[in-house]
Amino acid sequence: MKYIEILREGERVSEVYLCKTKQIAKTKMGKTYYSLTLQDKTGTVDAKIWDLSAGIDHFEALSYIKIDGDVTSFQGALQINIRRLRVASEGEYNPADYLPVSSKDIGQMYGELLGFVKSIKNEKLRTLAESFFVNDTEFVKEFRSHSAAKTVHHGFVGGLLEHTLSVVKLCDFYCVHYPILKRDLLIAAALFHDIGKTRELSDFPENAYTDEGQLLGHIVIGTLMVDEKIRRIPGFPAKTAAELKHCILAHHGEFEYGSPKKPALAEAVALNFADNTDAKMQTLTELFDSNAGNHDWLGFNRLLDSNVRMTTEL
Amino acid sequence: MKYIEILREGERVSEVYLCKTKQIAKTKMGKTYYSLTLQDKTGTVDAKIWDLSAGIDHFEALSYIKIDGDVTSFQGALQINIRRLRVASEGEYNPADYLPVSSKDIGQMYGELLGFVKSIKNEKLRTLAESFFVNDTEFVKEFRSHSAAKTVHHGFVGGLLEHTLSVVKLCDFYCVHYPILKRDLLIAAALFHDIGKTRELSDFPENAYTDEGQLLGHIVIGTLMVDEKIRRIPGFPAKTAAELKHCILAHHGEFEYGSPKKPALAEAVALNFADNTDAKMQTLTELFDSNAGNHDWLGFNRLLDSNVRMTTEL
Amino acid sequence: MKYIEILREGERVSEVYLCKTKQIAKTKMGKTYYSLTLQDKTGTVDAKIWDLSAGIDHFEALSYIKIDGDVTSFQGALQINIRRLRVASEGEYNPADYLPVSSKDIGQMYGELLGFVKSIKNEKLRTLAESFFVNDTEFVKEFRSHSAAKTVHHGFVGGLLEHTLSVVKLCDFYCVHYPILKRDLLIAAALFHDIGKTRELSDFPENAYTDEGQLLGHIVIGTLMVDEKIRRIPGFPAKTAAELKHCILAHHGEFEYGSPKKPALAEAVALNFADNTDAKMQTLTELFDSNAGNHDWLGFNRLLDSNVRMTTEL
Amino acid sequence: MKYIEILREGERVSEVYLCKTKQIAKTKMGKTYYSLTLQDKTGTVDAKIWDLSAGIDHFEALSYIKIDGDVTSFQGALQINIRRLRVASEGEYNPADYLPVSSKDIGQMYGELLGFVKSIKNEKLRTLAESFFVNDTEFVKEFRSHSAAKTVHHGFVGGLLEHTLSVVKLCDFYCVHYPILKRDLLIAAALFHDIGKTRELSDFPENAYTDEGQLLGHIVIGTLMVDEKIRRIPGFPAKTAAELKHCILAHHGEFEYGSPKKPALAEAVALNFADNTDAKMQTLTELFDSNAGNHDWLGFNRLLDSNVRMTTEL
Amino acid sequence: MKYIEILREGERVSEVYLCKTKQIAKTKMGKTYYSLTLQDKTGTVDAKIWDLSAGIDHFEALSYIKIDGDVTSFQGALQINIRRLRVASEGEYNPADYLPVSSKDIGQMYGELLGFVKSIKNEKLRTLAESFFVNDTEFVKEFRSHSAAKTVHHGFVGGLLEHTLSVVKLCDFYCVHYPILKRDLLIAAALFHDIGKTRELSDFPENAYTDEGQLLGHIVIGTLMVDEKIRRIPGFPAKTAAELKHCILAHHGEFEYGSPKKPALAEAVALNFADNTDAKMQTLTELFDSNAGNHDWLGFNRLLDSNVRMTTEL
Amino acid sequence: MKYIEILREGERVSEVYLCKTKQIAKTKMGKTYYSLTLQDKTGTVDAKIWDLSAGIDHFEALSYIKIDGDVTSFQGALQINIRRLRVASEGEYNPADYLPVSSKDIGQMYGELLGFVKSIKNEKLRTLAESFFVNDTEFVKEFRSHSAAKTVHHGFVGGLLEHTLSVVKLCDFYCVHYPILKRDLLIAAALFHDIGKTRELSDFPENAYTDEGQLLGHIVIGTLMVDEKIRRIPGFPAKTAAELKHCILAHHGEFEYGSPKKPALAEAVALNFADNTDAKMQTLTELFDSNAGNHDWLGFNRLLDSNVRMTTEL
Repeated sequence: MKYIEILREGERVSEVYLCKTKQIAKTKMGKTYYSLTLQDKTGTVDAKIWDLSAGIDHFEALSYIKIDGDVTSFQGALQINIRRLRVASEGEYNPADYLPVSSKDIGQMYGELLGFVKSIKNEKLRTLAESFFVNDTEFVKEFRSHSAAKTVHHGFVGGLLEHTLSVVKLCDFYCVHYPILKRDLLIAAALFHDIGKTRELSDFPENAYTDEGQLLGHIVIGTLMVDEKIRRIPGFPAKTAAELKHCILAHHGEFEYGSPKKPALAEAVALNFADNTDAKMQTLTELFDSNAGNHDWLGFNRLLDSNVRMTTEL
Repeated sequence: MKYIEILREGERVSEVYLCKTKQIAKTKMGKTYYSLTLQDKTGTVDAKIWDLSAGIDHFEALSYIKIDGDVTSFQGALQINIRRLRVASEGEYNPADYLPVSSKDIGQMYGELLGFVKSIKNEKLRTLAESFFVNDTEFVKEFRSHSAAKTVHHGFVGGLLEHTLSVVKLCDFYCVHYPILKRDLLIAAALFHDIGKTRELSDFPENAYTDEGQLLGHIVIGTLMVDEKIRRIPGFPAKTAAELKHCILAHHGEFEYGSPKKPALAEAVALNFADNTDAKMQTLTELFDSNAGNHDWLGFNRLLDSNVRMTTEL
Repeated sequence: MKYIEILREGERVSEVYLCKTKQIAKTKMGKTYYSLTLQDKTGTVDAKIWDLSAGIDHFEALSYIKIDGDVTSFQGALQINIRRLRVASEGEYNPADYLPVSSKDIGQMYGELLGFVKSIKNEKLRTLAESFFVNDTEFVKEFRSHSAAKTVHHGFVGGLLEHTLSVVKLCDFYCVHYPILKRDLLIAAALFHDIGKTRELSDFPENAYTDEGQLLGHIVIGTLMVDEKIRRIPGFPAKTAAELKHCILAHHGEFEYGSPKKPALAEAVALNFADNTDAKMQTLTELFDSNAGNHDWLGFNRLLDSNVRMTTEL
Repeated sequence: MKYIEILREGERVSEVYLCKTKQIAKTKMGKTYYSLTLQDKTGTVDAKIWDLSAGIDHFEALSYIKIDGDVTSFQGALQINIRRLRVASEGEYNPADYLPVSSKDIGQMYGELLGFVKSIKNEKLRTLAESFFVNDTEFVKEFRSHSAAKTVHHGFVGGLLEHTLSVVKLCDFYCVHYPILKRDLLIAAALFHDIGKTRELSDFPENAYTDEGQLLGHIVIGTLMVDEKIRRIPGFPAKTAAELKHCILAHHGEFEYGSPKKPALAEAVALNFADNTDAKMQTLTELFDSNAGNHDWLGFNRLLDSNVRMTTEL
Repeated sequence: MKYIEILREGERVSEVYLCKTKQIAKTKMGKTYYSLTLQDKTGTVDAKIWDLSAGIDHFEALSYIKIDGDVTSFQGALQINIRRLRVASEGEYNPADYLPVSSKDIGQMYGELLGFVKSIKNEKLRTLAESFFVNDTEFVKEFRSHSAAKTVHHGFVGGLLEHTLSVVKLCDFYCVHYPILKRDLLIAAALFHDIGKTRELSDFPENAYTDEGQLLGHIVIGTLMVDEKIRRIPGFPAKTAAELKHCILAHHGEFEYGSPKKPALAEAVALNFADNTDAKMQTLTELFDSNAGNHDWLGFNRLLDSNVRMTTEL
Repeated sequence: MKYIEILREGERVSEVYLCKTKQIAKTKMGKTYYSLTLQDKTGTVDAKIWDLSAGIDHFEALSYIKIDGDVTSFQGALQINIRRLRVASEGEYNPADYLPVSSKDIGQMYGELLGFVKSIKNEKLRTLAESFFVNDTEFVKEFRSHSAAKTVHHGFVGGLLEHTLSVVKLCDFYCVHYPILKRDLLIAAALFHDIGKTRELSDFPENAYTDEGQLLGHIVIGTLMVDEKIRRIPGFPAKTAAELKHCILAHHGEFEYGSPKKPALAEAVALNFADNTDAKMQTLTELFDSNAGNHDWLGFNRLLDSNVRMTTEL
């Protein structure tokens, strides 16, 4: 496949790409044209369809399209002038080529996660965890393929799973290290802490904030999701329910990061640290990956609020 | 009735009071005694039972007790030394004498509130409002008698109702003044904005933060309550549901005041202003009431972040 | 009239526009040319006069000019190359076509405002209000035509009047709703709260910060204006004078918004809410007007510190 | 004279003191008594008049009273039980014994200050300065005897003059050191920067915030005072007037310290530094004076936001 | 031994205590007396020596003293009136009874710590670590017995070691979990991060801020200590030296917590999380220990900025 | 010499410039070219070498190069297309033409500074100052030629010296004005306060943050430098050493500006004011210099957090 990152000015291209966005516009002379963003897993490129009359089939944004065109340059960026376009059929492309994907095996990560679900000793909490991660197939499908973010860190297919598993493992270590922690509650809270992201962000390839996501945020959505399932489990202890919801609500740690409550339980404190540690370490990992071999200062990073660089090899 | 505010050192007293708190303690010499806080609507007073052997029946905190004792003074404050004590029977006292109560008529205020419920034109929103304010008798009872706060403003029986009605009326005026506002959504949001307080604070006479209140807060509790009832209304539009929940979540206006989202809809902005305006004006009203006739500076007020005083008469 | 918003590349244009700015520049080859910004009420457009020799009469910025030229395009934006230019005579154009104007009738709004002036019962305060709004014809002229802001909200001819009237009405409602408020003081303070803007911002068409506006700000300028007129009213009570000035000083509510004092009187608190409520609701109104029919998320709004959107129709 | 700081329990005392405050109170038994605060320049002491019937003449707070009484102790503090009391006649006491006073000579400091007034070369600014510091005898009297603060630093008779002179001298040095500074403007601004304190704080012995001081603050009061006098000087340049008022308004440097404008002119920046430098250095000077010989850490100082100590002798 | 926590009013006591502070004071009648604070590991108690004439040997603060006296009560707190006093000889008391001590074995913890020192593969870094933890016997002695804080968390003998070991272990886990981390640098930084506390806080029993601690703080002191030893290691790479010092400087993570640099390397980010996680979890551990069995809300905790409670048992 | 600020489009140029940066790039067609930034003391200009084959000798960034080329224009900025290039020999150019340089005489300023060194009466502190400013010739060379900043203020050759001398003079004046200040300590601290900049910023012409500068900052670097030299002075008093280091650490005054300690000594407070005053006054001086004759508002200045302008001439 001809990936976007290797396109060069002057080339002809005939390839299937994902059409991320499609806008109808008018030239200053009043002629209608289409402005598209094409995407594969190596990046995005602008494309224009100046002549809509022939060779351009009907298509929608977020569909896979087979295009023929010329790679040109406009204001320092590449652009494809499309001459022909049709919607690609399913066998013509492999979706994995078009979306950023976790470098780790999704199936294996999910298996590990289920191991943690099973390790919860308290029956009510385990039943609750299973009601999501085992029995709710619709949820499982969403959870396995979602990103954990629009941009920032873990913004790829499987990112939500990868981040959740990493947070669970940190929490598991904390439980060994700090005896005051109640393992069942903390592991359950870690499993659930970001499930609201399955509704805050739309599915790939769009991966954008949903209307509900903008209005409520994943912290509250996740709390509502857990609250609803708890109601269906007879005899779920009210105090534990409140503690679990508290851990989800407080996991951002600070009001200014969208948590309506500050951590008030040891498990909520621990979950906040695990989430924050993983977010920052993953941010650095992705940054260093995309600057492989570069030991210079990489510029100001907003999440870390500092200029950063890789450490010198010893 | 002999109200607490008129007790004087040296008097004997024989009266029914509400026992707000009861603590078992030991003197430095090792003798067990009881330390109580007695309350009526005019204030509270400390009381001690030094001799538990005779004349002291069994009783619990938050019950009405008939006491006989002597008013003494300790470190500048009055104290009652109780000699005899028994639990009062229902006819012996009038609960209204023991709790701070709204100066307005609860029945009449509730009637006005129902008028606003009925004025909602959209059927789904009105059904939702009625499912709380008309059909849920348990909720209605709680809502009518709850305070809107532990201290600060509206901290009395009927305070939640009084504050809610006032906010609804402000919002009703805004709808006339600002045509962009959708009246049905805003009135519904105003009605619901503080219903979480029925679970965040315990009933009078305790009126203290509940465990759930500490862990989740009334903003999220109210959102959960609305979410649950919406599920039972077939065909409730998802977008309106999210907008309504957003208004509740955002009604404190700022992250640091516990709202996990900033107001993003005109109605959420308006509700935040109505709530905030009413809180501050009521705070001043209560402050001026308790300093009637005092036109001096009254000292620093934390909510207003300023020294305040009544305005000069013209 | 050929409005700027409908100009298209390639057209010839012969029209009167307001010359907002005029700069003398040199090409890299050293030739002098003029760079103008032309304005009408639909927007602005850049214009160049490359050849100053013939057909270009003398003119100044902020005058109405009749131009002949060609509409071209430079770096994605339209530009007019002017070939002929002269100052337009008064009858050739209607100023209302060139400035953003309140959609409401200025005369009618001013009439309503005078009604509130007359409703002040205290003679001294009413005399003071009349000394501005009735007797000071220079002030009245400025006040009626001023904007309330350079950009943000109410940034149009009549904006100051429209905002002031709206704030007065909110305060009038508060007085009914909250008995602690002294109506005469609050209505007077509302009338005066932004009069400093007549000196902080220059007249239309310029509508820019004046030197005095930059150095002192409208809050202090307004206080100085009121202070000066109060001195001329024999027997004006000193305490009321200080209270009125306090309300003006404190009407932004927070130090960081330029108020040197926090609201310390009930009327100052109320005025701050009325001003803030009107600013935010008007910001939303103008935003929705300029995005009519658009129910998508409209992007981050700085004043509201949130992404915003119109509410769904029920 | 028997100063308050040397009174001891068990002594009889017969002395003239300043009566700082006088409150009428009732014992728990309902008997009326007076509670006074007596003051001399060494401190204050509580006093009670339990028996109002005989030997107690009529008197008001803030008058000098001759008392006879016994020094007792109550809750760890000394207290005088007054048996006889009458208002002292003028010759019986020396006011200087009763108020904290600058250690520097007020006449000499004022002479220096007038030297700076005369050194202003610009006629309008000098005229303005003279209209306060030379011609307004009422103002001169207030200015010479006022404190610069209720507590904090320079809280003594002559403190306003001492602080103003010190700030003027710092500014004078800045003018030599930084050629961009316009000396006439800066010296004038330094002279005027705190004159509002003559109305923000009442005269000694009260030295408390006035009502106007609470409502407007010395920054705005000073600006109003200067504004009024400028109007009486024909031909005073408007731009210089605005610049001077700006320097006064901005001299606290930050919104949160009550300046409605940030310094925007070099002279305003310089004045802010001179005022701030003098405030902090004087705070340390007073702190070290009252801990003479103590080289330990003196505890947390709020203005400096740090624990502080004297520097080791080399 | 008669521990302070079990003393009761009215008892006679004859016991050795640590004299934490000694102050010479005068009664209001002018008589000299001593005011002491006595300490053992269960708490502190005030003591007075009213009669200095007989039976009171010479002694200094921070020495162990044998006292005979009576337990009385003053203003609600116990107080010992000492009649006889002498300095105790070494065999008469066990220092471990007088100081708060880590519940873990110091020798075993130090052994574990040395294991981590040895696990550093890079020779220069390991040499540096050994130059402190193996070869500098004076340092080793200080490090093993120091607290990690005056109050807050780890404020006991061995606290610095216990905290350091815990942080090292968290970092060790991070290195497994996040491959971008350079283990040698991170382990070394974790070992050194708080060594400045050996000079910021004085030894037990005083355990107070030293003068140098107040002036420089443990972050900078630790950096100076490492800097000095690095100079003695020929060929220590300059870049690694700077990175190591950076990790120490940045380990508080935020300017407002005294770090002059924000973490700019992955190891600095990780160390900051390890330190912060351990501080908060230990704070909760100590809080729960001192409230054993109490599942109520324990009140507002300043470090966690929230009311906290133990989690419910499942 | 043909300075960069007078180059015009269309000219040929043959001149020696400093090559500030050199980057190797590829055109979209894959051809290698060089992109340079050329600098002299009047500014910088982009330059390209499209054809690397002939007439282009080998050269490195930060060397002086003799170029022949054509001045063109690209996207509104000048650009030199270089045809021939060789490294210039030492006699061909005068380095002073290529770097921004203090307008004051470096030798004379350094002489003044040494006068202050000699004026320190305490032998140990004077020895310490001499160990840097007299005996350490490498340091002296660096110190005389360094800038005090990358951009902001004093960003020129000699800037560090000019700023340091100015701060010393302010401190010298403070010592006369405020008797509590210990002159020896304050003058020494002023001399040393920014010496860390000799290592935080690289030498001209680069003048960029060094790796050590990014990781440690000049505040800590300067403290380490002083600490090291103090160790070599036998009998240097430990307390004075800590006080001096404290003054350096605290001279930014606030945590958020990188000081790990707030000023706790009078000299640290004074140094912070001197440094801050000089920074802001020099910022204004440089701003006004580069806008000579411009009395308009100059736009928002980040350091002063305000729009600024020159003051009107009187």
